[in-house]
Amino acid sequence: MEESTLLSKKVSRRNILKTAGAGSVGMLIGATGIGGLLSLSDTKITKGETMKDKIPFYGKHQAGIATEAQHHIYFASLNLTVDNRKELIQLFRDWTEASAAMTEGKAVGDHAGNPFLPPKDTGEAAGLAASNLTITFGVGPGLFEKDGNDRFGLRNKKPKELKELPKFPLDSLEEKWSGGDICIQACADDLQVAFHAVRNLVRIARGKAVMHWTQSGFQRTKQADTKKETPRNLFGFKDGTVNPNTNNGKEMDQQVWVQSGDGPGWLAGGTYMVVRRIQMFIEVWDRTALREQENTFGRHRDSGAPIGQKNEFDSPDYNKKDANGQLAIPIDSHMRLANGDGSQQILRRAYSYADGMDPETGSFDAGLLFICFQRNPEKQFIPMQHRLAKMDKLNEYTVHKGSAIFACLPGTKKGGYIGETLF
Amino acid sequence: MEESTLLSKKVSRRNILKTAGAGSVGMLIGATGIGGLLSLSDTKITKGETMKDKIPFYGKHQAGIATEAQHHIYFASLNLTVDNRKELIQLFRDWTEASAAMTEGKAVGDHAGNPFLPPKDTGEAAGLAASNLTITFGVGPGLFEKDGNDRFGLRNKKPKELKELPKFPLDSLEEKWSGGDICIQACADDLQVAFHAVRNLVRIARGKAVMHWTQSGFQRTKQADTKKETPRNLFGFKDGTVNPNTNNGKEMDQQVWVQSGDGPGWLAGGTYMVVRRIQMFIEVWDRTALREQENTFGRHRDSGAPIGQKNEFDSPDYNKKDANGQLAIPIDSHMRLANGDGSQQILRRAYSYADGMDPETGSFDAGLLFICFQRNPEKQFIPMQHRLAKMDKLNEYTVHKGSAIFACLPGTKKGGYIGETLF
Repeated sequence: MEESTLLSKKVSRRNILKTAGAGSVGMLIGATGIGGLLSLSDTKITKGETMKDKIPFYGKHQAGIATEAQHHIYFASLNLTVDNRKELIQLFRDWTEASAAMTEGKAVGDHAGNPFLPPKDTGEAAGLAASNLTITFGVGPGLFEKDGNDRFGLRNKKPKELKELPKFPLDSLEEKWSGGDICIQACADDLQVAFHAVRNLVRIARGKAVMHWTQSGFQRTKQADTKKETPRNLFGFKDGTVNPNTNNGKEMDQQVWVQSGDGPGWLAGGTYMVVRRIQMFIEVWDRTALREQENTFGRHRDSGAPIGQKNEFDSPDYNKKDANGQLAIPIDSHMRLANGDGSQQILRRAYSYADGMDPETGSFDAGLLFICFQRNPEKQFIPMQHRLAKMDKLNEYTVHKGSAIFACLPGTKKGGYIGETLF
Repeated sequence: MEESTLLSKKVSRRNILKTAGAGSVGMLIGATGIGGLLSLSDTKITKGETMKDKIPFYGKHQAGIATEAQHHIYFASLNLTVDNRKELIQLFRDWTEASAAMTEGKAVGDHAGNPFLPPKDTGEAAGLAASNLTITFGVGPGLFEKDGNDRFGLRNKKPKELKELPKFPLDSLEEKWSGGDICIQACADDLQVAFHAVRNLVRIARGKAVMHWTQSGFQRTKQADTKKETPRNLFGFKDGTVNPNTNNGKEMDQQVWVQSGDGPGWLAGGTYMVVRRIQMFIEVWDRTALREQENTFGRHRDSGAPIGQKNEFDSPDYNKKDANGQLAIPIDSHMRLANGDGSQQILRRAYSYADGMDPETGSFDAGLLFICFQRNPEKQFIPMQHRLAKMDKLNEYTVHKGSAIFACLPGTKKGGYIGETLF
């Protein structure tokens, strides 16, 4: 094979992997290509295609929603201290500019600048790759009205769906993990990059907003793009297998993106985000028999397949009975209850967390930062969670400690700013 | 170029990178090689060499000390609840077996096994790569004697160097971040893999030991093996540039590994580990002028070079004066004080941490999980830290909240167990 022939072929990173996975005889890659491959930097390997680790910040929708989940999240919920509409707008403008720079792998403002001033960027991500960083902003009910105050003249723009979630049975919510006027979800394949993003955005908000709560999380490293599997949670199970197809625009419009006729026009192209901090009693789980674990989820542990099936993405047979005449996928299993009659779907994008030891119990404080996106929480998450809270077998092993809802703003174009449709 | 020619060349991952970096014309890699390259799995690409993501558990020294730092750490300090020497030995045996399996990317025990029993492995790392996992065990002073009790008949084996560190000026230590009978340091390029290791080892210790404190951490992702740089801390500076050369056996023997004549023979080939949980007031730092930041470290921020030099690894000129006749590297700068007269060295292997918000202040609880290894803490870390605690300019921006010392046991061979020289 001649080098030029291969270099002129369209070779995307995904294609390389596919070819590799298919066991083809060999492949020629330019030297810079190899470097790019390993650092996942934005090196062009052939005309018209790039090997990327950058996800565009600007677009019709915000990134970090339909985006395939990165390895790490740093999530922050903030409360606004500013009470001035103009300054709030300026905050969104500043955040937009800084976010666009950081997702490009660039520093905020001048990197070094005047030695007699503090540097504009905090510096810990200098030299690091963009790492597929996405930054996603959402606004909570408190932006529109707080303690009866129409703080920013936005009260009449509040969608009726944007209100604190109802209390579900067994909820054990704590203020310190709940609510917030604004959320920032930073996801990246490098935790230092995700943290750097949140830190700099919080810094920019100094005098205008304060942190209310934060949570970092992780999810399984993808082994290769060719082998798409659902990540395992800290119970060792693949959970969240049934998700809308993020590549199917129609499905996303039906299930995830708010449509222009749905309510106030400013949220069209946005979505509702539900966040739940769910502590998992992993020590208790670890003392539970495998059969019981599988009955709890309704799935086999190793394969992730629905009980009675072979592969993760096989369709569950909810009518199948076992040798004893019992439903193979138990009536109170997590999967059956989450599915319900199949009419509700949500886009799950959860991360595990491990916050060391719970000082009260001496056990791990570990679990799930559950995040989902949907077009209408009242038709999607809320009825689903009502079913789960009522009788999910999994409730024996989990407790919901935090809860929040945000309206994730639509995306914006270069020159615009996140939130512009609101003002 | 013909495929066979290139495939028969010795191609290690490092060599590929070097070649790529040098801008060579092209390189042919077998299809499985590409897959291996991206997943960093243990795929053989050519006779005699492998592309690895596995670090051998067995060896003269424990891994995770001279090992180049991985991206993530999950550190746990445990207290023993067993008071029986035989059970303690069994614990070390079980830990050794499980650790060796996990560092190979394997599950602990049978992965699935009997459905009527809990699975032996907790499962969340199933399908994930070994991710350069290392697991390092250390024993604290309490193993040898606690509250005057010779718990395991080991009192006379306690090295005189293994005692709680002295209180340094400005220390603000909290029990919840300090001490411990045993430590487990799990480092990996995948946080889920590191957490899985600690979780399973803690699980194995059930009834024999309990967690006392844990801390996760991260450090900058290496961009490429060819470009070795010191990671930046959360102040945005490269700290810890001056480290013994881990590839130089003689230097490591002088500075890091305990030698057979140093004290009790059981620790020969081991080392002393000092752990300090140092909170960094990043918001205060971020409001400090660049010049002041640089004077605090004694280094330039962007390049990491000593003040007055160009490159990170340039030798500092401690006598150089600035235009005003003042020492260019200030007398109270971190670098000058850490260096002292140059006679003390330590092997630093620190990670940043970001534990969300400090509820007391509303600021970030972020900082450094400082870890260093040395042959003799009384001659290395302790005098160095006395100098720093006394007048380091950096003290305005940091507070030491946690402290612990452990003797990291020597390595063992297959069939042996970590700790065997003690009993």
